[in-house]
Amino acid sequence: MVRIALVGGTGHQGPGLALRWALAGHEVLIGSRRGEKAERVARELARDVMAVGVEYGFGHGINQEVVSKADVVVFTIPFGGVRATCEALRDRIRPGAVVVSPVVPMREADFGLIADLPEEGSAAELIASLLPQARVVAAFHTVSAGLLRDVGRPVEGDVVVCGEDEEAKRLVMGLVEDIPNLRPLDGGPLAYSRVLEALTPLLITMGKRLKRPNLGIKFI
Amino acid sequence: MVRIALVGGTGHQGPGLALRWALAGHEVLIGSRRGEKAERVARELARDVMAVGVEYGFGHGINQEVVSKADVVVFTIPFGGVRATCEALRDRIRPGAVVVSPVVPMREADFGLIADLPEEGSAAELIASLLPQARVVAAFHTVSAGLLRDVGRPVEGDVVVCGEDEEAKRLVMGLVEDIPNLRPLDGGPLAYSRVLEALTPLLITMGKRLKRPNLGIKFI
Repeated sequence: MVRIALVGGTGHQGPGLALRWALAGHEVLIGSRRGEKAERVARELARDVMAVGVEYGFGHGINQEVVSKADVVVFTIPFGGVRATCEALRDRIRPGAVVVSPVVPMREADFGLIADLPEEGSAAELIASLLPQARVVAAFHTVSAGLLRDVGRPVEGDVVVCGEDEEAKRLVMGLVEDIPNLRPLDGGPLAYSRVLEALTPLLITMGKRLKRPNLGIKFI
Repeated sequence: MVRIALVGGTGHQGPGLALRWALAGHEVLIGSRRGEKAERVARELARDVMAVGVEYGFGHGINQEVVSKADVVVFTIPFGGVRATCEALRDRIRPGAVVVSPVVPMREADFGLIADLPEEGSAAELIASLLPQARVVAAFHTVSAGLLRDVGRPVEGDVVVCGEDEEAKRLVMGLVEDIPNLRPLDGGPLAYSRVLEALTPLLITMGKRLKRPNLGIKFI
């Protein structure tokens, strides 16, 4: 059992991961900048797992609170919030905690949505530079938030996991495996998160073109 | 039937595509900087298709010759040769010809192999800027050269095809479909070739780690 805090867990990507990890028996804490919002989403998510027959109580609180209790902190926030969030949480994240980045920096170019990677290489590398006490692992870039949220349906696909710390990477690969039908793949050092972050806008635009909004990938 | 010239077709990626398109009934011309090398490889490839029961004569010649006869020109060359090749072939490629770029610019960083995209955005976009008379389409970045070459075995996977010219893109998607078990997917404008070119070094390094040297991808 892992104690997982979802920073910005009330947003787009947090709720789906929260549900899946709750069903896998982990202790999931929903974080938000506003405590009452975290509480409300925690209640809603508890109803969602109840709908598949599982009684579960999500922890909740402001981001600073939930990360201080967690072994694994997942940054389910937009790229625009990364610097301020790292600043706000720097002293609250436990030394040696695993910080998971599914963050994708994107911009709307004239030809369409494309990655807008920061100078540090990727959002994950930026987070690692801002949180030296954390073990940053990049993962979950190519898994549809909508599919994760729909707990009645399986979510299929591969999740490439990158990071410098092998133990932290194994732990996150285990969290991928805890979600039925997802397969973790070791993507090597954290720098390969650049590729994963670049892939997401292609998946989104191709998904729209193919009318497959939840497009994912598999390595064969 | 399409007349296809493979520039640098004697190298790593050319022979496999040549074999597959020969078996699909296209007219394939092997190009090289040295005419005798093109001739030798054309003979070797003819033996390879004969081994699967098909009699076929590959055209061959120096790059300048073969591209001047072709409707589709495939740049099966390393990134380092792109500028000089465009310079040498600029006046020989037919106006309106389709130029296919499977080119992947890579460098060996301290953490491993990674894409080294040019200022223009991608190798394909660089080629488009150097050959304004051509209709450049990016494709075949995620298909193993080794699997393509092994004509007795099917080569599975998805091929994302990017380009500005819809007709040219459809033509190349047809050439993907001509290779059994490959599926073409419309990847949108040429700028998305940046993502495809970035993906290849990840496939190579992950393939080594997984002991799956011919790793490809599928979108699900």
